[in-house]
Amino acid sequence: MPLKAAELQIIGLAGIKEVAPGDPLAMLIVQAATGCGLSPADGDILVVAQKIVSKAEGRLVELRQVEPSPQAQEWAEAWNRDPRLIECVLRESRRVVRMERGVIIVETRHGFICANAGVDTSNVPPGWASLLPVDPDASARRIANNIHEQSGFRVGVIISDTFGRPWREGLVNVAIGVAGVAPLLDYRGHVDACGKELHATVIAIADELASAAELLMGKALHTPVVLIRGLKLPQREGSARQLVRSPEQDLFR
Amino acid sequence: MPLKAAELQIIGLAGIKEVAPGDPLAMLIVQAATGCGLSPADGDILVVAQKIVSKAEGRLVELRQVEPSPQAQEWAEAWNRDPRLIECVLRESRRVVRMERGVIIVETRHGFICANAGVDTSNVPPGWASLLPVDPDASARRIANNIHEQSGFRVGVIISDTFGRPWREGLVNVAIGVAGVAPLLDYRGHVDACGKELHATVIAIADELASAAELLMGKALHTPVVLIRGLKLPQREGSARQLVRSPEQDLFR
Repeated sequence: MPLKAAELQIIGLAGIKEVAPGDPLAMLIVQAATGCGLSPADGDILVVAQKIVSKAEGRLVELRQVEPSPQAQEWAEAWNRDPRLIECVLRESRRVVRMERGVIIVETRHGFICANAGVDTSNVPPGWASLLPVDPDASARRIANNIHEQSGFRVGVIISDTFGRPWREGLVNVAIGVAGVAPLLDYRGHVDACGKELHATVIAIADELASAAELLMGKALHTPVVLIRGLKLPQREGSARQLVRSPEQDLFR
Repeated sequence: MPLKAAELQIIGLAGIKEVAPGDPLAMLIVQAATGCGLSPADGDILVVAQKIVSKAEGRLVELRQVEPSPQAQEWAEAWNRDPRLIECVLRESRRVVRMERGVIIVETRHGFICANAGVDTSNVPPGWASLLPVDPDASARRIANNIHEQSGFRVGVIISDTFGRPWREGLVNVAIGVAGVAPLLDYRGHVDACGKELHATVIAIADELASAAELLMGKALHTPVVLIRGLKLPQREGSARQLVRSPEQDLFR
């Protein structure tokens, strides 16, 4: 008899059309799952692309209504960028980490460190930009609660965005909002295969789940929601704020 | 009729026992897959934990044979660490990036930036440490070639390790060796859902695949190999060296 292999299913939910401000995301997600012959179930994790959350929440800016500050204008001129976009980036930021070679790396108001504060002109109409949700943990919480109301099931929800990182090429998807799942899995105190106690091993599973989902999302592939099934986790609460390293713990500030 | 959902299967290959120097990894992996009722197939990706690759390649050091340098001794005393371990870390490093609060962040000889140069005492016998493979891309290439010889199938192979990162809590699995798959997926030139050309979007799928696999590996769970099936990628060559950002491109040096 074959050994039972542990298995995760990563399922891209096709069929979610263009999302507009006010759209009921949880309902669209449940409908998309149903359309794929699936129903969300207890313990499933739904990874939802930030872009559709921002759209549903109306976090869109029409650039012609943005008045750039002198700082934004100066920087835009120096690097041949749109001063109104720079202005949006600065407004969304708590702190500019680096501003060179045409790239602005900031700490967002949530504490995330990323390029352009998550302000983005892809997948929105020309002349508009999307901003990150004001409180992505609350966005995740709302989606999880609404799915529970509609389906009776308790799912984990992760709002994801693609971030660059120092030292390594390429972007990866990370979690910017979390509900219904603990974002960190702590192995400290467990023993390894040799019976030795593991130290200092805390895995950012919410980021790993976001990365796993990205493999089916693509950037232009119309798959903004991915369902992950089969991960046996204790049902626990958590938030993406737990993924933000405090300044005093961070060797790289 | 339900829409066809895109789906990835992430399958932990159970049944790989303790690996010793000289063990034929490809054969052990094919046997483990068979034991789980699976056969590797064209286009599958195998994510293999660094630890078993290092063990199979004999990249183990007995600490009582390590003579610490004065620098290693000084630092070990200051932070109450084992000077022989510090010595191993320094020998594996090209450059020390940070050395404070008891943590050594280095650039390894491969160019990876990580804690302790990947020198690790978990999952090895007491008094020993494991080192990263000398050339993890070559390790991945060997495994892929040997699996092809034994099974006739062409799989992608990713050697993974868990790394910390600035700004965010928790470790994630990343790719340190790659063969038979391109580690970066380049969306530049594609159009988004609004018909706009995507700029600057290169996704580090090898890291995302490594992260996805970690969800089933755990640190102590005896699942050092994970098979990922269903990702439709062009079969292309690539290496983990492509994931190392060159100093002149890196805003964080």
